[in-house]
Amino acid sequence: MKPRVGWIGTGVMGRSMAGNLLHAGYPVTLFTRTREKAVPLLDVGGEWKDSPAEVAAASDIVFLTVGYPADVREVVFGPNGVLAGFAGGRQRTESPVLVDMTTSSPALAAEIYDEARSRGICSLDAPVSGGDVGAKNGTLSIMAGGDESVFRRIVPLFDVLGSKAVYQGKAGMGQHTKMVNQILIAGNMAGMCEALLYARRAGLDMDRVMNSVAAGAAGSWSLSNLAPRILRGDFAPGFFVEHFIKDMKIALDEAERMNLRLPTLDLVHRLYERLAALGGGRLGTQALIRALDGLTEDDPI
Amino acid sequence: MKPRVGWIGTGVMGRSMAGNLLHAGYPVTLFTRTREKAVPLLDVGGEWKDSPAEVAAASDIVFLTVGYPADVREVVFGPNGVLAGFAGGRQRTESPVLVDMTTSSPALAAEIYDEARSRGICSLDAPVSGGDVGAKNGTLSIMAGGDESVFRRIVPLFDVLGSKAVYQGKAGMGQHTKMVNQILIAGNMAGMCEALLYARRAGLDMDRVMNSVAAGAAGSWSLSNLAPRILRGDFAPGFFVEHFIKDMKIALDEAERMNLRLPTLDLVHRLYERLAALGGGRLGTQALIRALDGLTEDDPI
Repeated sequence: MKPRVGWIGTGVMGRSMAGNLLHAGYPVTLFTRTREKAVPLLDVGGEWKDSPAEVAAASDIVFLTVGYPADVREVVFGPNGVLAGFAGGRQRTESPVLVDMTTSSPALAAEIYDEARSRGICSLDAPVSGGDVGAKNGTLSIMAGGDESVFRRIVPLFDVLGSKAVYQGKAGMGQHTKMVNQILIAGNMAGMCEALLYARRAGLDMDRVMNSVAAGAAGSWSLSNLAPRILRGDFAPGFFVEHFIKDMKIALDEAERMNLRLPTLDLVHRLYERLAALGGGRLGTQALIRALDGLTEDDPI
Repeated sequence: MKPRVGWIGTGVMGRSMAGNLLHAGYPVTLFTRTREKAVPLLDVGGEWKDSPAEVAAASDIVFLTVGYPADVREVVFGPNGVLAGFAGGRQRTESPVLVDMTTSSPALAAEIYDEARSRGICSLDAPVSGGDVGAKNGTLSIMAGGDESVFRRIVPLFDVLGSKAVYQGKAGMGQHTKMVNQILIAGNMAGMCEALLYARRAGLDMDRVMNSVAAGAAGSWSLSNLAPRILRGDFAPGFFVEHFIKDMKIALDEAERMNLRLPTLDLVHRLYERLAALGGGRLGTQALIRALDGLTEDDPI
């Protein structure tokens, strides 16, 4: 019999992911801050609950896709949170599992693991990459931390949500892997936006330039997938600037904790903060080019 | 009948490229600063000349792959240079052509074009990407600037040297395209090295991390091709740090001339200068991780 699934947070990512589990035949209860965002899922068989605790009480496995570490903390530890709900919930033959798929802090993931464990609850940190398209098509890359035996229990569900789920190690290692992913993207995005600005200013024909550079040593996923959006003036979000800023800040905080200086990440973070200050927080990450365009020596970054 | 080819500069790139033309049946005369570097080419049919001028006098088309813009300037404009040699050389049915494949300054490319033209000589700037492996296998990406009719004359030879030759526009546009390529690489390399440092410090298993991130939105040629070298401690040059520093400096100078501020490129340039100051100038560009490792808040960059 399929385990009962709970899903908390039905934004761009969570909506598609929970939908894929429903489509695969899992019973899913739902809570999200703004109820109308869950309606499309209720229409296809999801069951509404009025709090994270009520979701957990009815579930064997609860997934989170919320926004910020502070949201994770509240949803997990709060009086109406998941841990409280699991404790007062249904009889189960196995320990319940909390799977946090929010991109969040590795230290918080370890804290959740310890606290959950002390209450007989299992937990995994399992952030993803692949964006809205990957969530919709079930082709996400899932990076998991926690106990390997627990990871194995969840693999059948990960296989519905993504095309690749890799066990990365103890609690927090999923989040650390996602930070690696975001540090890579930060460098690629900054290089891409500065290169496109240079090309435009030099008067180059962008189609010819892409033909020369995209398939070679300068190539990247960002260049192949986001440069075309920039070139046609499309700054709609695949991934929100404000969420990327959050991710980079987590990575910078972790790096500082590890006594590691990451000057490029630090610079790119400041450039994105400039973009947010210019009103670009809800644009897609490719809008970085707007923060760079017209930058002068006098602009503090 | 095949045109007579001259080749000036037989370093890592030029040696393989001139060799491919010889192999394809072109008669090739050669000059390079250190004669013994040309010996393998003389052994397979290349003919030695004692100066760039003598090479040009015997040739219809002369290729340059030298080191720095100052070298290009001397080899082209000097008293024993290519322009002087073309002027006093063999009778030809078509104008001779100078093809500078060195990564060099767009402004210098335009200057060469104007001066050559005033003497009835054609010129192209045609830098490449694809590195030592691309040069050897004839799979370079060639980015050309100058007159399109001249570009078309040279295409049969470009087809021997590379797998893709794209006409980018007037004189200097080949070099500008190469700058775009190098700005992209600068961002990718910095992101990659900072991400690998973070991963190592966090205690992640690098094979698992690569499995999670390399094929997705964080992917790049640098990550797929150079991260494995870093992970096995291989800092041998595919592309020299000191040459990359030269390229970034050209791009920064051009950007300044165009009133364009490129903060990421500027930072990565300074990081590579730090690496050179640490003695890494003749290592491969992947050695950037060494300049970042152990960087403290007190290090000026």
